[in-house]
Amino acid sequence: MQGLMMEMPLTIGSLIEHAERYHTKTEIVSVETSGERTTTNWGAVGGNARRLASALRLLGVSDGERCATIAWNNRRHLEIYFGVSGGGMVCHTINPRLAPEQLVFVAEDAQDQVIFFEQSFLPLIAKIQSQMNTVKHFVLMGARDDAAADQIAGLLFYDELLETGDADAPWPDVDERAASSLCYTSGTTGNPKGVLYSHRSTVLHTLVGNQPDGIAISAQDTVLPVVPMFHVNAWGVPYIAAANGCKLVLPGPNLGGEAILNLIDETETTLALGVPTIWMNLLAALEASESTLPSLTRTVVGGAPLPPSMIPKFAAYGVELLHAWGMTETSPVATLNQFLQRHKQLSDTEKTELRTGQGRPLYGVDLRLLDETGAILPHDGKTQGDLQVRGHWVVKRYFGKDTDALTDDGWFDTGDVSTIDADGYMVIRDRSKDIIKSGGEWISTVELENIAIAHPEVANAAAIAARHDLWDERPIVIAIKTPNATLTESDLLAFYKGKIPTWQVPDAVIFVDALPMGATGKIQKNELRKQFGNRLMEGQKSNA
Amino acid sequence: MQGLMMEMPLTIGSLIEHAERYHTKTEIVSVETSGERTTTNWGAVGGNARRLASALRLLGVSDGERCATIAWNNRRHLEIYFGVSGGGMVCHTINPRLAPEQLVFVAEDAQDQVIFFEQSFLPLIAKIQSQMNTVKHFVLMGARDDAAADQIAGLLFYDELLETGDADAPWPDVDERAASSLCYTSGTTGNPKGVLYSHRSTVLHTLVGNQPDGIAISAQDTVLPVVPMFHVNAWGVPYIAAANGCKLVLPGPNLGGEAILNLIDETETTLALGVPTIWMNLLAALEASESTLPSLTRTVVGGAPLPPSMIPKFAAYGVELLHAWGMTETSPVATLNQFLQRHKQLSDTEKTELRTGQGRPLYGVDLRLLDETGAILPHDGKTQGDLQVRGHWVVKRYFGKDTDALTDDGWFDTGDVSTIDADGYMVIRDRSKDIIKSGGEWISTVELENIAIAHPEVANAAAIAARHDLWDERPIVIAIKTPNATLTESDLLAFYKGKIPTWQVPDAVIFVDALPMGATGKIQKNELRKQFGNRLMEGQKSNA
Repeated sequence: MQGLMMEMPLTIGSLIEHAERYHTKTEIVSVETSGERTTTNWGAVGGNARRLASALRLLGVSDGERCATIAWNNRRHLEIYFGVSGGGMVCHTINPRLAPEQLVFVAEDAQDQVIFFEQSFLPLIAKIQSQMNTVKHFVLMGARDDAAADQIAGLLFYDELLETGDADAPWPDVDERAASSLCYTSGTTGNPKGVLYSHRSTVLHTLVGNQPDGIAISAQDTVLPVVPMFHVNAWGVPYIAAANGCKLVLPGPNLGGEAILNLIDETETTLALGVPTIWMNLLAALEASESTLPSLTRTVVGGAPLPPSMIPKFAAYGVELLHAWGMTETSPVATLNQFLQRHKQLSDTEKTELRTGQGRPLYGVDLRLLDETGAILPHDGKTQGDLQVRGHWVVKRYFGKDTDALTDDGWFDTGDVSTIDADGYMVIRDRSKDIIKSGGEWISTVELENIAIAHPEVANAAAIAARHDLWDERPIVIAIKTPNATLTESDLLAFYKGKIPTWQVPDAVIFVDALPMGATGKIQKNELRKQFGNRLMEGQKSNA
Repeated sequence: MQGLMMEMPLTIGSLIEHAERYHTKTEIVSVETSGERTTTNWGAVGGNARRLASALRLLGVSDGERCATIAWNNRRHLEIYFGVSGGGMVCHTINPRLAPEQLVFVAEDAQDQVIFFEQSFLPLIAKIQSQMNTVKHFVLMGARDDAAADQIAGLLFYDELLETGDADAPWPDVDERAASSLCYTSGTTGNPKGVLYSHRSTVLHTLVGNQPDGIAISAQDTVLPVVPMFHVNAWGVPYIAAANGCKLVLPGPNLGGEAILNLIDETETTLALGVPTIWMNLLAALEASESTLPSLTRTVVGGAPLPPSMIPKFAAYGVELLHAWGMTETSPVATLNQFLQRHKQLSDTEKTELRTGQGRPLYGVDLRLLDETGAILPHDGKTQGDLQVRGHWVVKRYFGKDTDALTDDGWFDTGDVSTIDADGYMVIRDRSKDIIKSGGEWISTVELENIAIAHPEVANAAAIAARHDLWDERPIVIAIKTPNATLTESDLLAFYKGKIPTWQVPDAVIFVDALPMGATGKIQKNELRKQFGNRLMEGQKSNA
């Protein structure tokens, strides 16, 4: 027997339609690539998104065809998000920091029909355009620019393209299971793989991710997604913002500590979201400024483990750090670290320790741990195992592949080694490929890095497995000192004493000026292993 | 092109599964019908719900068949909610305050197979059992009771029935569009009509209704649904509670001011939900006690318009009143009165005025106003029209009917006359059938009642249209005085002066000892019109 309620699809068009209708005048502040700060609102963004959808149809783009963006967080990018997906096409966000050959690879793999790009990427696009065989239209995200038009034959301009569209066109009917957007994994090993989100998965992620124990955005908030819109849909913030009608601040390309600090203070941002590096830079800028971050109440931190030492530093400014975890394959929010009622009684130290973990799954996501034989492990907070996940917004199959990316019983293996406690609080101990196996015991590189970063003279650090004759692998730490630091290797090794069992203390510390970073801001440990992995072997000690 | 994400149905089983798995030890306090207070938790409720589902299958109940409850808010009722719906059957909640012939009508109309009932309804059930032709099993919600067994042949006992079920049985696969639960409208005119919710409509209502600008329940909350579980699923609170793992307090049958006050204080309730009458009684009890309601931060008020005078009274205790609106046909939450960012700048008076309205629709609900010709009216905050609604959790067709209950273009007509402003804030001016048409102009009975109730010597009041020779209809007010009040008719009429235009001031006030109440606690204005509707006609003045 079927229920007798109205049925309508869960679509991205319906999210922006709500914002346009009920939050018409709520502001969206946008830092353009030029540095200029402009202000629009949900009414105008909704109208422009509908205009863009109809303009793309007139250009000949069909249902489900991919339109790519190579862009920072700004209002045109927001309009493209909703115009492309709401119009029934697929919005493919490309990471501008990809190497040119990777950028060509993902555009070809996705069979992009249209590429929207910022003025600053004109030289890049001009150089690689001939290799992007599927692309029919390049669109510069701005007004007409004759100098640019000379470099790319048939170049279109976003502001002119909008004019060809119909602002009165309603959103088309779209199947909620249709593809809505596409994002490639960072691909530290092998080629990037595309995750093809559906309207349904996106809307459900929006609704669950914004529960009070989720990101918890209200119409009273001013929200600054520092996390890029090319990075797993800015963690879903554009969709949550539309569904809930908050004020949005889009920071453009300059994500330095001082720029972000000024933007927070000047727009009275209440919630900001980004990776730990962003917050480290913000803290540095704060120390050099007189700001006390009066408007900011909380930040969501994800993309890399949260260094525990950051928690009290932000608490001093009255800012709560909310640790979240997910991946491109999980849309991305899978767990969030909000407390249960009985955690209110914990001491500050215990609270900080709990907050350091990745948190618990929200409704709609389920987690489990497996050992090497495929047996399911207990959720006791101690037993480490391979973390698997399933849920409404978890990948089933990568774009263009013939087989599902799941276990036989339908779970996705995250590639992380974790523990889960009886309440579902999950702690990532390491990436399976990064964890150090020393004499048959596992050592978490994440834990070693957190300790190093907590030292006041360490700016950043990475722990890796170095090959070892006796123990197979032993930990070593590659660290960047803060300016003018006088720290020595033995100082830092001494700093580990008492914090972890003696056998887990690294065998060596190597100071460097920079760590190799991937396109999404993650440290490339495979590069470090290539460079320093033999550091402990006989005859290799003088190499590095 | 379809998205490539996992797909799983949105089911009520998945809500309780989440609570059982991730909020296992979070407490549920239950006041039993005996008055005894017991404590269970989500783990036990989840296990018992699965046990019940399998026990019902063993009894021969099939997919989609209706199992009814005649019960107060307590832990067995909660287990039945999840056991019946999660198990693929339909949970039909019956209002125990229905007259016996209405109760028989709804059980017959629903073709209930099983009726779960409380000990206190044993005499009633014993009397009407023979008229309930579809019912195969009566289940008393408690332990075996031989005296009860003598009164109903084949009577089952809930605690024994549970023992026959399998606690290890997983939830069955259920289509998200399948019927999950059934609730009848209060039917002030004609027979009650059944609204048949689906798993999908229920889960979407759960997720949207609990956004930060919705009911906003967190795992840190202790939530007391005073609103009955037979009254539109207690406004969805049991489902929201499971999805978010809050502590739940189920108050049993005694909803008097003092009982609720003690329950709030003793369980440290943070959020309570109920109709205005409940809060009036609570305020009265508060005045007679030394409690300052230390734990309570907010209440959700719905089911009848919020008397504005209540807002500052609760504010004095640090409690925020959140006005919500909906109907059985809207699952029920359709609008909630949470502020936008710019409302923070309003004065306290302006804030109170805004809070008095029914609020704005959340994502997934859309509203419009129509005039008598069917033309769409503007959302200007002034123009009154017939309120129509649509959304994922709005009724399409009543149970057992052959035709949809909607307009030709798919909207549900609420029977309310409202205004909507440019931000979507809706104010119900009246029920279409209650509004007073005086000389061609409309007068809102809700507004007249709010003013009367704001008088310190008025305990409750209802405004109705009285027939009038010259103006067709004129307003009169039927009021109950507070104990020992010395208020006169002319005092109360004088109280209206300056608050509304002179022509809207009622023509008469009639003091009574009680107002006629329907089964859901609403004043029966049709009864009042029968009794007092001719009060202003020549020769009728001495009647009342």
